[in-house]
Amino acid sequence: LRSLKCRQSEYFDQQQRFASSTAPAADGSSSPSFSPSGGGTASPKVFVGHSIYKGKAALTVEPRAPEFTSLDSGAYKLSREGFVLLQFAPAAGTRVYDWSRKQVFSLSVTEIGNLIALGPRDSCEFFHDPFKGKSDEGKIRKVLKVEPLPDGSGHFFNLSVQNKLVNLDESIYIPVTKAEYTVLNSAFNFILPYLLGWHAYANSIKPNDRNRGNNANSRYGGDFEWSR
Amino acid sequence: LRSLKCRQSEYFDQQQRFASSTAPAADGSSSPSFSPSGGGTASPKVFVGHSIYKGKAALTVEPRAPEFTSLDSGAYKLSREGFVLLQFAPAAGTRVYDWSRKQVFSLSVTEIGNLIALGPRDSCEFFHDPFKGKSDEGKIRKVLKVEPLPDGSGHFFNLSVQNKLVNLDESIYIPVTKAEYTVLNSAFNFILPYLLGWHAYANSIKPNDRNRGNNANSRYGGDFEWSR
Amino acid sequence: LRSLKCRQSEYFDQQQRFASSTAPAADGSSSPSFSPSGGGTASPKVFVGHSIYKGKAALTVEPRAPEFTSLDSGAYKLSREGFVLLQFAPAAGTRVYDWSRKQVFSLSVTEIGNLIALGPRDSCEFFHDPFKGKSDEGKIRKVLKVEPLPDGSGHFFNLSVQNKLVNLDESIYIPVTKAEYTVLNSAFNFILPYLLGWHAYANSIKPNDRNRGNNANSRYGGDFEWSR
Amino acid sequence: LRSLKCRQSEYFDQQQRFASSTAPAADGSSSPSFSPSGGGTASPKVFVGHSIYKGKAALTVEPRAPEFTSLDSGAYKLSREGFVLLQFAPAAGTRVYDWSRKQVFSLSVTEIGNLIALGPRDSCEFFHDPFKGKSDEGKIRKVLKVEPLPDGSGHFFNLSVQNKLVNLDESIYIPVTKAEYTVLNSAFNFILPYLLGWHAYANSIKPNDRNRGNNANSRYGGDFEWSR
Repeated sequence: LRSLKCRQSEYFDQQQRFASSTAPAADGSSSPSFSPSGGGTASPKVFVGHSIYKGKAALTVEPRAPEFTSLDSGAYKLSREGFVLLQFAPAAGTRVYDWSRKQVFSLSVTEIGNLIALGPRDSCEFFHDPFKGKSDEGKIRKVLKVEPLPDGSGHFFNLSVQNKLVNLDESIYIPVTKAEYTVLNSAFNFILPYLLGWHAYANSIKPNDRNRGNNANSRYGGDFEWSR
Repeated sequence: LRSLKCRQSEYFDQQQRFASSTAPAADGSSSPSFSPSGGGTASPKVFVGHSIYKGKAALTVEPRAPEFTSLDSGAYKLSREGFVLLQFAPAAGTRVYDWSRKQVFSLSVTEIGNLIALGPRDSCEFFHDPFKGKSDEGKIRKVLKVEPLPDGSGHFFNLSVQNKLVNLDESIYIPVTKAEYTVLNSAFNFILPYLLGWHAYANSIKPNDRNRGNNANSRYGGDFEWSR
Repeated sequence: LRSLKCRQSEYFDQQQRFASSTAPAADGSSSPSFSPSGGGTASPKVFVGHSIYKGKAALTVEPRAPEFTSLDSGAYKLSREGFVLLQFAPAAGTRVYDWSRKQVFSLSVTEIGNLIALGPRDSCEFFHDPFKGKSDEGKIRKVLKVEPLPDGSGHFFNLSVQNKLVNLDESIYIPVTKAEYTVLNSAFNFILPYLLGWHAYANSIKPNDRNRGNNANSRYGGDFEWSR
Repeated sequence: LRSLKCRQSEYFDQQQRFASSTAPAADGSSSPSFSPSGGGTASPKVFVGHSIYKGKAALTVEPRAPEFTSLDSGAYKLSREGFVLLQFAPAAGTRVYDWSRKQVFSLSVTEIGNLIALGPRDSCEFFHDPFKGKSDEGKIRKVLKVEPLPDGSGHFFNLSVQNKLVNLDESIYIPVTKAEYTVLNSAFNFILPYLLGWHAYANSIKPNDRNRGNNANSRYGGDFEWSR
């Protein structure tokens, strides 16, 4: 049994975004994000979540949108990739789940890549500290383990949360069958380009758009790959 | 030959949706669905179905949309996942099919996941009782079996329906080649995120949308994963 | 070396569509297609094709749209699935191709499924007679063979056309590398749901659409699967 | 260890586009592209890029749109396929990257196909000369190598640039884990049909479009495949 240890630090990710001496055009690291209280036309919100209900727990999986910032040119750039939120709720009785006791875990794009690539006999482990780099660092520790079921019929998802602030130590398990995992994978594969914001670029590709900057940097003209 | 038994009870699924003591935001279990007789602007309807015609039977595969409910906030939430409807018709002669004798079977999202994940040598079986939890429970029993063809060239789809109300006991078989199964899988993979309603969320992700609630719960601020 | 023989008769397919005694709602077999000379607003046409250029021949791959018919209700139904057109042109010199001598072959949805599912060591063969069921049946015979290259680095595409009407017997070969085949597969996988028309159904699924017929046939009400 | 050598010459690609004696309708080789300074309504630009940050280097991956030209008929045709731009920046300190020293490499559609199809133990090598066919041919030589990591946990991406014009000889390495590669593959698979322009054709397929030319060349009428 192979066990991939995939320790991932969001703090590290965050720092990296702000550390580049000269960010490339597509790296939205420098300008602040919009305040959500801003005006402007809003898309109607839609709440979607796919749930798996089992005897001892329920798991709800929900996408969370990436963020964009506007540039002086009127263009937009991706400033933060989206993610997928996992919500685990323990059962409070037969087919009753106590969502007030839910525990959450947000999967980054690369963690989603881990889950998509996970073979039927692979296991994986992610570590999160929501306060990493803050004064409360180490107060909360979350571990998500995804391990193959002994009979090969699927995987166990196990979220452990140690919260020293409220003296909590909890672990929620839920078995996910191969078919359920296939549905998750299909949803993850679908949503991943949206989490990266690539759909926004893709949707902007129109045959009758005369203002594409691409032409100016024609690849075949030679100087597009000649960056220095 | 491995035989996955995947007994799935829609009644159980339904109950679960209504049993949670405190449903998460994305679990549309509490408010009633719209009546179809309501007003409002409607999209033009489109009927699509992909058919496989064979000597003794035909099989038509059609997607069925998920349902949404509106919230007081003006937002929408998924209230019921979509599904795929299988329609089996026996042949009534050479290349003639008797659709008046058709039998139907609706595949849930997880059952679709089963079919997508089915290996060339795997088989699968689903059990449905349309009246499960109703007074007529047990009166109709449907079994869909998907089994590999002996020569490995595809799978048999076999729908058996026992209907005690009209004293019917029928079984319709249709062989599906590897190529035909590939087409079904491609269609299933395409439609699955729509059945989950994730396309509606994805389509609402726009670079110039200043009203996203995401920002308020910034993942990197630490309290997004700090649910209690 | 395994050789799948996948003889497919378009005439048979066509006949089937018109032979059903009672067609299901989604099977658009009964009403005639629109004449292309009709009025109405048209989408701007876009010609796309992906080409593979080799020493002795070039191959261009182009999608062709499905067709819909309108119903009295104002709804639309798919009346004919789309396909993918392969165009083979022989080289007329170094990097020069003679498109006036091109030969074409249209891949049905199921034939596309065959190509998508084709393993690196598999081969496949399709037979077409454009006049099947017409008075000129047998006058033109086309065979597309897709066979693995001896070194496993890709597949040969070979289109043979025998045309007794103009006393022609031609064969065009083009090697397609694994990478080129991957691009074709990606394009085929993308376009397949469009060829089935499923995108039109998918795009009509909107959270705020109050007129869906789905609700009336609620799956959980029991009578949706109770077709008789 | 198998090493696929996939030398690809953009100059050759370019020449081919202009060399056909009679181009097929979908091969947009003959008319010039729009000047980017033209008027007309423009889509809001969106900059997206997915970055991988490691100890010694960072890699940013960005899609670049295909180009279309307009025809006298008012239709559009693809004139140049899109590509994916890789940008490599060396680290200038801990979590600091020097984008002023970045090196770029643009992946063609077929090169993307190579990366998508790359097995966990496969390696691949691409050679580019931005001045191929120009007077400065041979002055700049770029090699992108993608090789499996010794422990099988992912691939090394290595871009070497030899620039005789400025007497530069640089090599940037970055390890890409299996999970990160999965994210790249998912993004590549998503964007590939857009790079081919097939999304523009797909989006033009509407049920209520009465002006499709498809009908005139009905596949079942026999003369669609009868090209001569």
